Amino acid sequence: VPDALNDLKQRLAEVYDLEKASAIAGWDQRTMMPPKGAGARSEVSATLSGIAHERFTSAEIGRLLDELAPLEAELDYDSDDASLIRVTRRDWDKARRVPSELAADWAREAGKAHVAWLEAREASDFSLFKPALQRVTDVSLRWAEYMEPGDSPYDAFLDEYEPGMKTAEVKAVFDVLRPELTAIVREAGEPADDSFLEGDFPVATQQEFLAGVLRDFGFEDGAYRLDPTVHPFATTFSRTDIRMTTRYKPTNLRALWAGMHEAGHGLTYQGTDAAVARSPLYGNASLGLGESQSRTWENLVGRSLPFWRGRLAELQRLFPQLEAVDLDTWYRGINRVAPGLIRVDADEVTYSLHIILRFELEQEIVAGTLALDDLPEAWNAKMSDLLGVDVPDDARGVLQDVHWTRASYGYFPTYALGNVLSVQIWRAVEEELPDLDAQLEAGEFGPLYESLRRRIYRHGRKFTPLETLERAIGATEIDPQPYLEYLRSKVAGLQPA
Amino acid sequence: VPDALNDLKQRLAEVYDLEKASAIAGWDQRTMMPPKGAGARSEVSATLSGIAHERFTSAEIGRLLDELAPLEAELDYDSDDASLIRVTRRDWDKARRVPSELAADWAREAGKAHVAWLEAREASDFSLFKPALQRVTDVSLRWAEYMEPGDSPYDAFLDEYEPGMKTAEVKAVFDVLRPELTAIVREAGEPADDSFLEGDFPVATQQEFLAGVLRDFGFEDGAYRLDPTVHPFATTFSRTDIRMTTRYKPTNLRALWAGMHEAGHGLTYQGTDAAVARSPLYGNASLGLGESQSRTWENLVGRSLPFWRGRLAELQRLFPQLEAVDLDTWYRGINRVAPGLIRVDADEVTYSLHIILRFELEQEIVAGTLALDDLPEAWNAKMSDLLGVDVPDDARGVLQDVHWTRASYGYFPTYALGNVLSVQIWRAVEEELPDLDAQLEAGEFGPLYESLRRRIYRHGRKFTPLETLERAIGATEIDPQPYLEYLRSKVAGLQPA
Repeated sequence: VPDALNDLKQRLAEVYDLEKASAIAGWDQRTMMPPKGAGARSEVSATLSGIAHERFTSAEIGRLLDELAPLEAELDYDSDDASLIRVTRRDWDKARRVPSELAADWAREAGKAHVAWLEAREASDFSLFKPALQRVTDVSLRWAEYMEPGDSPYDAFLDEYEPGMKTAEVKAVFDVLRPELTAIVREAGEPADDSFLEGDFPVATQQEFLAGVLRDFGFEDGAYRLDPTVHPFATTFSRTDIRMTTRYKPTNLRALWAGMHEAGHGLTYQGTDAAVARSPLYGNASLGLGESQSRTWENLVGRSLPFWRGRLAELQRLFPQLEAVDLDTWYRGINRVAPGLIRVDADEVTYSLHIILRFELEQEIVAGTLALDDLPEAWNAKMSDLLGVDVPDDARGVLQDVHWTRASYGYFPTYALGNVLSVQIWRAVEEELPDLDAQLEAGEFGPLYESLRRRIYRHGRKFTPLETLERAIGATEIDPQPYLEYLRSKVAGLQPA
Repeated sequence: VPDALNDLKQRLAEVYDLEKASAIAGWDQRTMMPPKGAGARSEVSATLSGIAHERFTSAEIGRLLDELAPLEAELDYDSDDASLIRVTRRDWDKARRVPSELAADWAREAGKAHVAWLEAREASDFSLFKPALQRVTDVSLRWAEYMEPGDSPYDAFLDEYEPGMKTAEVKAVFDVLRPELTAIVREAGEPADDSFLEGDFPVATQQEFLAGVLRDFGFEDGAYRLDPTVHPFATTFSRTDIRMTTRYKPTNLRALWAGMHEAGHGLTYQGTDAAVARSPLYGNASLGLGESQSRTWENLVGRSLPFWRGRLAELQRLFPQLEAVDLDTWYRGINRVAPGLIRVDADEVTYSLHIILRFELEQEIVAGTLALDDLPEAWNAKMSDLLGVDVPDDARGVLQDVHWTRASYGYFPTYALGNVLSVQIWRAVEEELPDLDAQLEAGEFGPLYESLRRRIYRHGRKFTPLETLERAIGATEIDPQPYLEYLRSKVAGLQPA
């Protein structure tokens, strides 16, 4: 191995360690930190990311990348070393474009916007958020000017979360989804009863059930944790130190699916090849691909009939009030389709419609064709148009998401791409594993995990999302049809006999 | 404020943030981390301390310190700014002396010695530890050659933990303690019954009791945590994010005093002036002074008659089996004096004898007058001499402590200095607060905390330990007599009527 490559790897490993230190501080902040620790914690986080950025964007790393270009050309494109050089160059080029003052401005305005958003949401008054949203949006537009110009002004934003993907590609997928999803919502008819999901569900018992599910999913003993938090998330400090969280309420069971969702993220972290650990290649190829896997374990597994055929009895033993709920009723209830106001409470069908709304608005914001003053009205009109619901107030409308406080335009579409990709990939797994349903029912998740690990997880960030998809299932583009077929068939199966 | 001072403060704040990131990673490692996270964690920790060291020892900080020397001379010695410049110069001078290869060698050999020690302790065979101990000791002796030469080769080691203190000063204190403590042990006579401390004590109930004690001690709501761990410790991420730990066992109550001990450390972190936060001045002046405060809250409060006169009933309510134990029996039991083999299990009287043994052996190791091959024999002879006990095996003898795996010579004496200082300072507090006993009984710890905060905690690391002692109680040297009088009087009071 040439010295330059070793030198590069060593420098990247240090940057990785700084980022992991930041992740540890962040996990602690969201699960353990006493509230008054927040002030000092933000200083620690800012220092760590500043130093990580400074070291990563150093001229020395650029020099090493130049020196390694001939080696990269010699190596197989798919090799770990060629991928490391290629992905690092891409990351480095992007990181170098942004003046550090601008990054600091963005962080500062985002912090202020977060405070304003909390107040505005409390008062359910968008006008209290608007000035801060304008300022952080302005910073984000200045940032976009430093990026590679795309076909659309939104391309730069999207590229942050879906490397290499264009707005037009996403739009093509969403243009198919939009009318089809609204049709499926209509087909779903009267929402099923899911009132049995509310009631008295002691948290410790929920934890016990979920711990068993995660064990069965295939997490390695002594290499992960699952903790309570307010806003569920998953993070990883190494392939053998994975942290998942969920939000327990003693009055309902929704923590189970939030937990399985985060477990899906966790499995991608666990399944990455050891060879790409402690490097920029550790992680997901994109947010959309990552989300496809959280959705896989939350929905394609965790809301499937086979899964619950095998596991409802255990849940009924833990919560005897569910003994009166038969499998069919349970299945219809946990898959209830009903248009609503809140994205994070949405079902599998309507969820992507919430995303399409945001995707359309974000493009207009970024293009400057929608003034922020007009945002609530535009939001409410689209909610009526896409989901047929009237928005009663800003808190349950335009103010419901935290993402815009950071002007994280381009983030939302990755959720719907994840939904689409999850089924597109699942179809290939089903072909490979004819006994999959029986395995899910028996609680044998090993073959499923192993297939997904081999197809996707092991690659980490070696490839772009589309390159990864090609290696995973041989497809060269995102195809919304399997997802739509899955929803149509599921909705048909949910109808009362 | 001159630019150079602002520049210095900014650089020191970043180093502080890196050290706190390291502390967060360390706390997580010892309380939360799944076991298989250890490998990646050690890389994160090494990177953080390497970068913190690199940034702290930069030539630029030296240049700023030179530039600020005239300002320092103008300012009041006790001012925050003069103290910052003075203490930083001292830290910087020491840190610059050590080549980074040597620091890395030390860390590596310490890691290997820790592994060897675990194996040796398991096998109860010192010879398995000896080669690794020799190597890490050799590195430590190489390190000492870079330090300011002292009157004794041990001075450099001691100075790491008790800045400015000399071996001869510690020896003078210990020479008084040695015969007096052995005499007090004899006076204590037959050990009291403390069998009621063993039994069935559900951990959750212990936690509830200890949480109430910490609240009463004066910790600020939402600014601290108390968690279970294997080896209790306290750490701080800021004045309002203090982390304490204790070791619970469902079969005895010893976690209570370990918890109060760590709470004592925590109170010193909470009581530091805001003006010295996020700087090298945050912390304790020395390990001995820090330990004096953990001992204060563990022993002078937590093993005192007034404290339990006010609180035994609550403990009896939580653990009904204690209702049969009257206050007098309880007090004699929790203060039981009995020579034993293990330092961490030792009582208030014999504890310092365990330390004197280590202090004497360490001086010989460092001076090269005791070959490590002869260490177990020397240990056993001193145990017989000082405590009158026969050491049955290495595991319960020379292999019982983790400290020597890092060749942390000079660390042990700070424990006994802490015992001595705790009472010396307590005497001044008692004079100031004539109602102290009544307050302890009533669970009113505010006046005690406030007195200690004003005398000691607020200063952080502004002064050397002896300078701090002078500001705290007007004393210019460590006086072992109050400690000995306290022990004599306590032992006399423990005799059955």
